Amino acid sequence: MDAALRARADKVIPGGMYGHLNARILPAGYPQFFARADGCRLWDVDGREYLDFMCSWGPIIAGHKHPVIDEAARKQAEQGDCMNGPTARLVELSERLVGMLPHADWAMFQKNGSDATTAALMIARAGTGKRKILLAKGAYHGAVPWCTPSVAGVTAEDRAHLIYFKFNDIESLEAAAREAGDDLAAVLVSAFRHDLGVPQELPHPDFARAARALCDRQGAALVIDEVRAGMRLSLQGSWEPLGVRPDICAWSKAIANGHSLAAVTGNDAFRKAAQQIYITGSFWMGGVAMAAAIATLDVLENSGAIQHFEKMGQRLRDGLQRQADKHGVKISQTGPVQLPLVLFEDDADYSRGARFTAEALKHGVYLHHRHNMFLSLAHTAQDIDHALQVTDHAFAMVADVAAH
Amino acid sequence: MDAALRARADKVIPGGMYGHLNARILPAGYPQFFARADGCRLWDVDGREYLDFMCSWGPIIAGHKHPVIDEAARKQAEQGDCMNGPTARLVELSERLVGMLPHADWAMFQKNGSDATTAALMIARAGTGKRKILLAKGAYHGAVPWCTPSVAGVTAEDRAHLIYFKFNDIESLEAAAREAGDDLAAVLVSAFRHDLGVPQELPHPDFARAARALCDRQGAALVIDEVRAGMRLSLQGSWEPLGVRPDICAWSKAIANGHSLAAVTGNDAFRKAAQQIYITGSFWMGGVAMAAAIATLDVLENSGAIQHFEKMGQRLRDGLQRQADKHGVKISQTGPVQLPLVLFEDDADYSRGARFTAEALKHGVYLHHRHNMFLSLAHTAQDIDHALQVTDHAFAMVADVAAH
Repeated sequence: MDAALRARADKVIPGGMYGHLNARILPAGYPQFFARADGCRLWDVDGREYLDFMCSWGPIIAGHKHPVIDEAARKQAEQGDCMNGPTARLVELSERLVGMLPHADWAMFQKNGSDATTAALMIARAGTGKRKILLAKGAYHGAVPWCTPSVAGVTAEDRAHLIYFKFNDIESLEAAAREAGDDLAAVLVSAFRHDLGVPQELPHPDFARAARALCDRQGAALVIDEVRAGMRLSLQGSWEPLGVRPDICAWSKAIANGHSLAAVTGNDAFRKAAQQIYITGSFWMGGVAMAAAIATLDVLENSGAIQHFEKMGQRLRDGLQRQADKHGVKISQTGPVQLPLVLFEDDADYSRGARFTAEALKHGVYLHHRHNMFLSLAHTAQDIDHALQVTDHAFAMVADVAAH
Repeated sequence: MDAALRARADKVIPGGMYGHLNARILPAGYPQFFARADGCRLWDVDGREYLDFMCSWGPIIAGHKHPVIDEAARKQAEQGDCMNGPTARLVELSERLVGMLPHADWAMFQKNGSDATTAALMIARAGTGKRKILLAKGAYHGAVPWCTPSVAGVTAEDRAHLIYFKFNDIESLEAAAREAGDDLAAVLVSAFRHDLGVPQELPHPDFARAARALCDRQGAALVIDEVRAGMRLSLQGSWEPLGVRPDICAWSKAIANGHSLAAVTGNDAFRKAAQQIYITGSFWMGGVAMAAAIATLDVLENSGAIQHFEKMGQRLRDGLQRQADKHGVKISQTGPVQLPLVLFEDDADYSRGARFTAEALKHGVYLHHRHNMFLSLAHTAQDIDHALQVTDHAFAMVADVAAH
């Protein structure tokens, strides 16, 4: 069925598939098309079941078919979704985010993570009257011309005012700021470093404070891209535990448990600028995604979600490390435990990682070999332990191949 | 209730509301917040009922709560929406569009109209290796930095490669092409001219043919922005009745009857380019919006939708003209009847239009005074006639004010 759909897709979709969900960039054996999902489990179109560690690449934070969230969405859909104006859900959700996030005095909603990061930079530019954006080399901030990882279809002017620094490197940040001179609009930085295929890094508190101080000194906006990390590290904003508050944050992915929604939150210093820019979309005021978002935030707050992610993430990381040690396979596990990334030593082409994940997939565990993974509220200790039974076997296979 | 929500919104949303659904840019009396919708009727949060002629600014083409479309969406939601890959709906919908649209050999899906217009230009640039885009001055193509009507937060570089012509003016198109020289990537043109607050214009067949010939001569892409017009003028593409086929089209709004979806369709000449660019979004592969789109296209095809829109639009236009003549009020009604636009003579500040629509609103008919309106399959002859009873009264009031 998957093969037949791929053959049909090849005819009517360029390359048969596009974007980050393209199975052709995964190891052989991964399915392209899915039939259904429940909790932390997925079924492909051939009926194969997977214990999932990608959570749709982030959006599924409470698990598929969460009863409370799905009921909220269903109830709103019965009333109305896309109408001539917003529903009361817009105000309720804005109040909810402003109440949760100490940095935020206001919120605006969109549909894609790229919408939110783009709007955040527009607001920073409108508010400062400056143009230059400092951002970390290799960071992913979306897939529109100014930030997509490819250069096909992109012009030099799309990136004219971007200046790059190295994540967690204060000196390189200061050098980038010197290059911007008196034209600095914003420092844009991911909540933590989660660049594709390299070790993850949490922000050093000194780096976070230096970024804040730089923005304060120059009157620039500190913009945190929370699209990937948001609501998995802290429900108060990922840098709140560091004591560093951004001016503007971009959110998407997990905030509505899979419903299409993005948000920009900001402080009063940038309220007028946010009012000045003109951004909009045909479906941005849809009530269903907002109702789902409110329910998602309720569920996360009421269930000790962050502690659950940390506990499950630590259990997985500890188990994987024990197995790697036992099998004499050197791996690195970096960044926050709730967004697991497993890389193998001496694996520049990711072939060992691919072998490991392909083997796990054969036994029904869906991992990624070079992108960070995600946990949800639906992952139980039993699920983690079941995954570890499978990975023990996969490590043995990688060790065996390495020995020959 | 609306007033109370606006007061709460003022605190947590910049300006209290943003974008095209901001009621502050409508005449006094228009509600900001809506509670529910059914067919071509809306209820605001204070329980007031409206016979609606905006259709959520386009997306609602079959009417709210359409049983076939809603059932398709509900069934898909029960299986899965946002997963680790697409569902079979992706292939089915791509095949459907390729089968319907004579110009199209492939399709790709996004979430916003701006996503689709932006992707179309990226594909044109990737395919031609050129940079310049010719587009009509005053045309709306979305609300991201290269095209948003505001300049707040926008840099000059965001629009560095845009050259403007006048819609339907072959000479100005040729002049713009001369300015682009050998760097011409695309001619981007709306399916018809629907700029805010000015008379609408259908494309002259000569202009459409000239644009096609120009692109053929220079190896550029002819890109039609179908976001506004799409599926209301023709189910084969808006320029198909003119005998002019685009290379690439951008779609959104009506294609999924209010579900968040956009699409780019293109021909084989641009297939490789479409494969080369990297665009993606967290929710783009969601099955629910695609299932809704397939059902929407089924409903439109099976119900003689275009003829229905034309018939209802003509009935409304004829009725309004008769009333205007009777009351001695000079109006212009331009463009396709299925996207009605009513402008008043000597009304540079739109105050007469605002008086007219505010009066209609008081009697439960939701019109717009300077943006084109939309019809749906849910609008019956009885609905049109009911609206005309109300507009007769509104014309009388405008005539009365003008006489004093």
